[in-house]
Amino acid sequence: MKMSSSEAASWLEERDNFLILTHRRPDGDALGSAAGLCRGLKEAGKTAWVLPNPETTLTYEKYIAMYHAPEGFAFEHIVTVDTATIGQFQINAADYMDKVELSIDHHPSNTGYAAAGCVDSERAACGEVVFDILIEMSGSVSKETATALYVALAADTGCFCYGNTNSKTHFVASKLIEAGAPNGRINKELFRTKSKKRLGLEASIINDMEYFFSGDIGIATLTWDKRRRMGVGEEDVEDIAAIPNQIEGVKIGITLQEKQDGTTKISVRTSDSGPNANDICRKLGGGGHKMAAGCNVDATPEAAKSQLLKAIEEVWLR
Amino acid sequence: MKMSSSEAASWLEERDNFLILTHRRPDGDALGSAAGLCRGLKEAGKTAWVLPNPETTLTYEKYIAMYHAPEGFAFEHIVTVDTATIGQFQINAADYMDKVELSIDHHPSNTGYAAAGCVDSERAACGEVVFDILIEMSGSVSKETATALYVALAADTGCFCYGNTNSKTHFVASKLIEAGAPNGRINKELFRTKSKKRLGLEASIINDMEYFFSGDIGIATLTWDKRRRMGVGEEDVEDIAAIPNQIEGVKIGITLQEKQDGTTKISVRTSDSGPNANDICRKLGGGGHKMAAGCNVDATPEAAKSQLLKAIEEVWLR
Repeated sequence: MKMSSSEAASWLEERDNFLILTHRRPDGDALGSAAGLCRGLKEAGKTAWVLPNPETTLTYEKYIAMYHAPEGFAFEHIVTVDTATIGQFQINAADYMDKVELSIDHHPSNTGYAAAGCVDSERAACGEVVFDILIEMSGSVSKETATALYVALAADTGCFCYGNTNSKTHFVASKLIEAGAPNGRINKELFRTKSKKRLGLEASIINDMEYFFSGDIGIATLTWDKRRRMGVGEEDVEDIAAIPNQIEGVKIGITLQEKQDGTTKISVRTSDSGPNANDICRKLGGGGHKMAAGCNVDATPEAAKSQLLKAIEEVWLR
Repeated sequence: MKMSSSEAASWLEERDNFLILTHRRPDGDALGSAAGLCRGLKEAGKTAWVLPNPETTLTYEKYIAMYHAPEGFAFEHIVTVDTATIGQFQINAADYMDKVELSIDHHPSNTGYAAAGCVDSERAACGEVVFDILIEMSGSVSKETATALYVALAADTGCFCYGNTNSKTHFVASKLIEAGAPNGRINKELFRTKSKKRLGLEASIINDMEYFFSGDIGIATLTWDKRRRMGVGEEDVEDIAAIPNQIEGVKIGITLQEKQDGTTKISVRTSDSGPNANDICRKLGGGGHKMAAGCNVDATPEAAKSQLLKAIEEVWLR
């Protein structure tokens, strides 16, 4: 069943004891949305907690840790944020997969796995949908809620720089800063500070870039071996998918990350003038948005690259 | 005389034939504000042109060129945008210095050189002040005006990332995108496109970074030989001084660029928690601002580095 933000607000108002789930390899939008929703619900007098996500990176830990559900929390209702499919559920959520009552999301690829879905695919961040719902519930958000939701918006838009950013995104950002979100501090932390390891990784990725289709496609590969040699952690590889797409002339920026189990995570970023990233990734069993999508392939990076280039040839009629 | 945005709107409404001036080494805020004001005035039925600024860079040329005043334009009133002092006037504006009737600006350091000043120092970009005035005049802005003003906002806030960005900035951005400003395309162009040469240079700079004082100081060196080997031009080295300062833990980010004549250009960038960059560079005959300064030293990069580290030891009482 589809729900508008005001219907979702009513649904939440009529219930209590919520457990909030995020997705595997959670990003700032997932964790910021979960933290913001949890805080907003608490402020509306509800009991709500977030299921700790074991893949949470250090970058976002401090925004989410205080909302982690205590052991044995007797929840009554399960809500997911920013999670399009059951396959993307956080790795410790297997028991909850068929019990989700409300999915709050912005992915056009949301499969409708939950009993009800409040999905607005025109929003740049799931945090915007959470904001709408909380405003419907309470009329305003606190500084703490605004801080979490600002993290969600900034993270999913590359600080309002990506093509998904729209008029509504800026309107919500305006309201969150008005409510006290410390945007300058958050941005310095998330976007204007890099670890030496991260910088070394960026340099190495750039040096090893490969180009295809006369430079229309740029591919960066990060093998597990290189990652191990460089001592690179999860927090260091966050958002590296944005790198190839910023190279002059590149219309499809691709990142191939080999996982420890030998499979490959593919991230596809396209520009306005490029093909639909979601179409490409769906060919390989994944999905996402028009300009940002991904998939996991049971193959080495080299083999994954061939599959992907074939998928692009099928999808992109230049 | 100080003017509010509605007073400035009335003042403009009552007059005609405006010549708009920008500042030397014009940035996106100056040129975007000038283009947006010019377009907005034309749409309100006025005759308005921008005085061509000979230092306009290629990046912004296309946003401003169509508003350049034709030869012999018989202006009646001169308006400046984004210009705090007479010393900052664009290099070909000497004849107009004492004839400015209205200064539209956001610099707290605006000296009041114009007969009237519409200066709002709480705004991140001068483009926001122009927006306020045009809304007072016409109630809305066209897509073309919005595009120019969006460039102004994005340029002066590092795409809404710097600490100057506030609630009002996002509100104006929201309105500009609603009016049709192609934010995605503009951001891609201004912030998310790098030449392969530039990326290669960044990678090389990062790989060769040296750290001193337990990592408080990060130094990047670009020798003339390396520059020549990489085929790097002036446009590729623009703003490379920002690179060392974004490294985690670095309080003083330094760039040493060897010039063709064997001298070395030193750029110093500090953070809130670091020492005064101006003090350091003055020790070596240069100067600048608290967090960004520079100097030229008649020495090789290696010798310049020793001089600089000595100057820092003298200035920085840790």
